[in-house]
Amino acid sequence: MTTNNPTNSVTVLGLGLMGRALAGALRRDGHATTVWNRTAAKADDLVAEGATLAASIRDAVSANTLIIACVSDYEALRDLLDPVGDLLDGRVLVNLTSGTSAEARETATWAAGHGAAYLDGAIMAVPAAIGTAEAVLLHSGPREAFDQHEPVLRSLGTTTHLGEDHGLSSLYDVAVLGLMWSILNGFLQGAALLGAAGVPASAFTELAKVSATTVAGWLPAYAEQIDQGAYPAFDSTIDTHLGAMAHLVDESEALGVSAELPAFIKALGERAVAAGRGGDGYAGLIDQFRKPSEVGA
Amino acid sequence: MTTNNPTNSVTVLGLGLMGRALAGALRRDGHATTVWNRTAAKADDLVAEGATLAASIRDAVSANTLIIACVSDYEALRDLLDPVGDLLDGRVLVNLTSGTSAEARETATWAAGHGAAYLDGAIMAVPAAIGTAEAVLLHSGPREAFDQHEPVLRSLGTTTHLGEDHGLSSLYDVAVLGLMWSILNGFLQGAALLGAAGVPASAFTELAKVSATTVAGWLPAYAEQIDQGAYPAFDSTIDTHLGAMAHLVDESEALGVSAELPAFIKALGERAVAAGRGGDGYAGLIDQFRKPSEVGA
Ligand SMILES: NC(=O)c1ccc[n+]([C@@H]2O[C@H](COP(=O)([O-])OP(=O)(O)OC[C@H]3O[C@@H](n4cnc5c(N)ncnc54)[C@H](OP(=O)(O)O)[C@@H]3O)[C@@H](O)[C@H]2O)c1
Ligand SMILES: NC(=O)c1ccc[n+]([C@@H]2O[C@H](COP(=O)([O-])OP(=O)(O)OC[C@H]3O[C@@H](n4cnc5c(N)ncnc54)[C@H](OP(=O)(O)O)[C@@H]3O)[C@@H](O)[C@H]2O)c1
Repeated sequence: MTTNNPTNSVTVLGLGLMGRALAGALRRDGHATTVWNRTAAKADDLVAEGATLAASIRDAVSANTLIIACVSDYEALRDLLDPVGDLLDGRVLVNLTSGTSAEARETATWAAGHGAAYLDGAIMAVPAAIGTAEAVLLHSGPREAFDQHEPVLRSLGTTTHLGEDHGLSSLYDVAVLGLMWSILNGFLQGAALLGAAGVPASAFTELAKVSATTVAGWLPAYAEQIDQGAYPAFDSTIDTHLGAMAHLVDESEALGVSAELPAFIKALGERAVAAGRGGDGYAGLIDQFRKPSEVGA
Repeated sequence: MTTNNPTNSVTVLGLGLMGRALAGALRRDGHATTVWNRTAAKADDLVAEGATLAASIRDAVSANTLIIACVSDYEALRDLLDPVGDLLDGRVLVNLTSGTSAEARETATWAAGHGAAYLDGAIMAVPAAIGTAEAVLLHSGPREAFDQHEPVLRSLGTTTHLGEDHGLSSLYDVAVLGLMWSILNGFLQGAALLGAAGVPASAFTELAKVSATTVAGWLPAYAEQIDQGAYPAFDSTIDTHLGAMAHLVDESEALGVSAELPAFIKALGERAVAAGRGGDGYAGLIDQFRKPSEVGA
């Protein structure tokens, strides 16, 4: 096997659900794509479509300057890459495996030790969306390496470079996921509440969608207040919110559905009021999220 | 004072921030508007614009068939209306004061006792939005009374009739508010997390907005699963979510921000997995919201 580095060619390591979607989108966009997977059979469809299956992980890594890895977790990543560290010198490793910012920084150090440029990445999309603008891919690490390979990476979706700190992709990833679970939990609470009164969840979706979109539109103004450290109420005060939070708890208890999320929401409001923020707008609650967890809270 | 019931004329009781916005929008839309407030001076601007200030609450109620009330809470509403119950026979009372579904149903019974049709309502908007399509007003109670007065009510914003049960407006109200607080809390958690890594909140807003809008788009499919009681994973399983939830907890702890919301999210995921729903999609968590709160959880 000769080393073959045509511009815009790429190697994909890991052909699970996500790896196959990545390799498929790259190949469809005209990039010569070499693939490798522990279980080789998962490459069959890709090979039928024109991808090249490397005979070994060493061949796969040797084939291109740009190496994209996407496996289950960082333990799998180490199993995969440790035996080929010696081949990484001068290459660019883009790791799209999900993990924590600490794991990303450790891997960056490991890669640097082998002379490789390292970009960490997070995929904010399901496999089916890969290759469309709807798939958001976050990258962090050296800007130069990102700029150089962005013409290939952009075949995967909407790419963003967050900064040089390798941990940023993972941090933004969990920040967005936390928002996602919060929205879904808020919806499920409402669905449970209305369901207990005989209203189907589907009767709640339209209003929930409109409301979620409206609230999303408020975020820039709240963010500005957070960055400035001042939270004047331009709509409703935390005091006012707290009154309505009590209604949410009361209704949940009266209808016999879980009042855990409502009670958590209300407790946050109460603590902010106790901290003197009752007259502020909702962004004044940021202090409650910055604080380390209260034991037993 | 003679009773004067031209079609589409209306009385507004309560001229706080919201009551003034309601009366202003009605008058601007060409409805002859009679107003009354405990503190009469709050009517000054409205009167200057052409509204009629009633000399007494009795005159205000006598002036029109359609009476809209919007005061602080149901205690204020009782203070306001108890002395004029005898005048309500044959009128339609639309109460836009925030409260619980139980309070709405009690008031419906009280109004029926005085021969009045009763519509309960919830205002999903700030005063400044009243009179625009962005202001969503939820109504519940007799459909006939709603249909009859909708030509007036629609001057306030986008009106919806939810059903005959008077409690529905309040229930939808807290369901939407719970979703709103959940979104804001999810955003604040992300902002705190990124802030601890030196990223300003404003750098998170664009991604948060896009993500919130994307997640809002998933709600109809989740709602359908909830209504059908089956939760096949069409994107990601709860098992997979749980792995990432642990990352959110780890990152929050590592960065020294509150891990309360992350721990709550993860605990829900764990309970769903323990209940055998690990292979289901996120909607399978609905059971955790239907259950009455766990003591000490
Ligand atoms: N699927 C999604 O919706 C989604 C969305 C965003 C992010 N992600 C992230 O993308 C990554 C991959 O997810 P996926 O959905 O593709 O998972 P998957 O379908 O379970 O695939 C896992 C991949 O990792 C490989 N692997 C696991 N352990 C290994 C080891 N010890 N040595 C070598 N290879 C190993 C597997 O190889 P074998 O085929 O030989 O088992 C397979 O290629 C994960 O970090 C996930 O969090 C996924
Ligand atoms: N403001 C918002 O953004 C918003 C949004 C959605 C829903 N709402 C709901 O709308 C309702 C009114 O809110 P608001 O913002 O207008 O509040 P507000 O500015 O505090 O006004 C309260 C009103 O209630 C009257 N009132 C209070 N106690 C009374 C009593 N015992 N007897 C007679 N009148 C009494 C006040 O009369 P005086 O002027 O004489 O004190 C005033 O007209 C509340 O239920 C609120 O939850 C408000």
